[in-house]
Amino acid sequence: MDINAEIGKLDWSHEPKGLYEPIGYTLAAGGKRVRPRLAILAAQLFGGKVEDVLPAALALEVFHNFTLLHDDVMDKATVRRGRPTVHVKWNENTAILSGDQMMIEAYKLLSQVPEKKLAKTLRLFNKMATEICEGQQYDVDFESRDDVTIPEYMEMIRLKTSVLLATALQIGAYIGYANDEQQKKIYEYGIHVGLAFQIQDDMLDCYGDEATFGKAIGGDIAENKKTYLWLTAAAKGAKDELAMRIESREERFKRVMAVYKRLRVKAAAQKEIAKQTDAALACLEDLPKNEYTKQLRDLARKLAERSK
Amino acid sequence: MDINAEIGKLDWSHEPKGLYEPIGYTLAAGGKRVRPRLAILAAQLFGGKVEDVLPAALALEVFHNFTLLHDDVMDKATVRRGRPTVHVKWNENTAILSGDQMMIEAYKLLSQVPEKKLAKTLRLFNKMATEICEGQQYDVDFESRDDVTIPEYMEMIRLKTSVLLATALQIGAYIGYANDEQQKKIYEYGIHVGLAFQIQDDMLDCYGDEATFGKAIGGDIAENKKTYLWLTAAAKGAKDELAMRIESREERFKRVMAVYKRLRVKAAAQKEIAKQTDAALACLEDLPKNEYTKQLRDLARKLAERSK
Repeated sequence: MDINAEIGKLDWSHEPKGLYEPIGYTLAAGGKRVRPRLAILAAQLFGGKVEDVLPAALALEVFHNFTLLHDDVMDKATVRRGRPTVHVKWNENTAILSGDQMMIEAYKLLSQVPEKKLAKTLRLFNKMATEICEGQQYDVDFESRDDVTIPEYMEMIRLKTSVLLATALQIGAYIGYANDEQQKKIYEYGIHVGLAFQIQDDMLDCYGDEATFGKAIGGDIAENKKTYLWLTAAAKGAKDELAMRIESREERFKRVMAVYKRLRVKAAAQKEIAKQTDAALACLEDLPKNEYTKQLRDLARKLAERSK
Repeated sequence: MDINAEIGKLDWSHEPKGLYEPIGYTLAAGGKRVRPRLAILAAQLFGGKVEDVLPAALALEVFHNFTLLHDDVMDKATVRRGRPTVHVKWNENTAILSGDQMMIEAYKLLSQVPEKKLAKTLRLFNKMATEICEGQQYDVDFESRDDVTIPEYMEMIRLKTSVLLATALQIGAYIGYANDEQQKKIYEYGIHVGLAFQIQDDMLDCYGDEATFGKAIGGDIAENKKTYLWLTAAAKGAKDELAMRIESREERFKRVMAVYKRLRVKAAAQKEIAKQTDAALACLEDLPKNEYTKQLRDLARKLAERSK
């Protein structure tokens, strides 16, 4: 299954162009297509058919890209995957309306899943979509709060990042005839993998290699963003130090990194990543042992060690 | 069925408040609840049960209010139903994200329709949602075009206004066990009623009474908006006259109204409303004759004569 080819088959060339061109532009930007791949893999794991899960897999990818499009408007981000964002290339209203249409397109794809699987798939999808919006809202709320705890942060990234991976896996498993217990396990695997992924992302922003990571290092520190590292240092009493106003981006980066070093923040994050990775791997124990579970095991290990 | 009471039962008091409060605020603003009423009435017309169609009826109302919320952001509208719009009362990002969540809430309500009716209801809903976005895009496109024709305008308002009314009726009829031919007729009725409604709206902006209509008269003329009246005058050769730049809103209104009078634009619009109303009434001929079809007949006649 060439997922990029399947995405490429979706036709965005019709009228009105102002509505559909930005959707084609967004989906053509690439990315790792992790979510549709996970949905398909989960179906295969339980002996399901790829063609049965494909519409839902595409729906998940389109929905994911819709969230990026609207997030970029809200964050005023100017670049996504090396290209101007939609609201920069077109304008903000186009980004809002084409984003809305992208969400509808996701539901149109979803409506093509086998009819007897539709009701539950729709419910799982709706729950996931709601949780992503809630995660986004908490992320916004955290910006203006100075008492965010690590458990609150974990819950926020669970909503914002993990549930989409977990739901992709569960929908794939459900359409592939996994039973309820198996769906639950693969969903939990997705939650833990997502948490490990996000904390690793926080790490890479500080300790990554710019050339390998593919984006500038230190962005979170420059914005004083409440990442896992920031919150760990804050919990160890460094809140005032982290809040210091330093004009120079380089100087600020150096000072914050020194705080992180002194408080062994990196080790704490690595420990949490290892914990989440172990929890993810444990979820796989109760699932059938085959080449697809092996891929999920490899994925969990790789994410914990990734440098990009 | 007290539709306002049913909308009032939807709970928006949970966390995160920044996401859900604007949804509750939007839905509490009232309005005529035409779409859910039409869905329920259509189900009753064919002997269907109100409780079967209620989730879809609520989904239609929530979706309609979502479109208003995002349209207000795009139009930079500051007032809706006598209250500050969401992006004014909160901010633009809140309006975008809570709007997104409102669309998801519509799909959550939709997922509650009887399971064997779900697949087709979802497809009808998705088609309608897509067409509304397309209509909105054409409306935007028309602003920067000076060669818009009346048929193009009719197609735009069909998409932007009529399909939601028509789909509300069809979904109600479908869930209420109408056959395909009957669904088609009631859908067409909705299309014609919607067109009549929108042209009447264009008329009221010029010829309405402010106190009765409930909003300021002349807004379309002040913005040089391409309404049915504008396009009719333009088609009769008045394009340059309509494009004239006049600073004073009052003076501009007077001059444009004089053009409309000279070219008998009002009569042309009235003729089109009568034509659409007759077409709507003709659609009802092939449906069962009962108190509900009588209500639809009255509605079509009332819309054509309404002053608010």
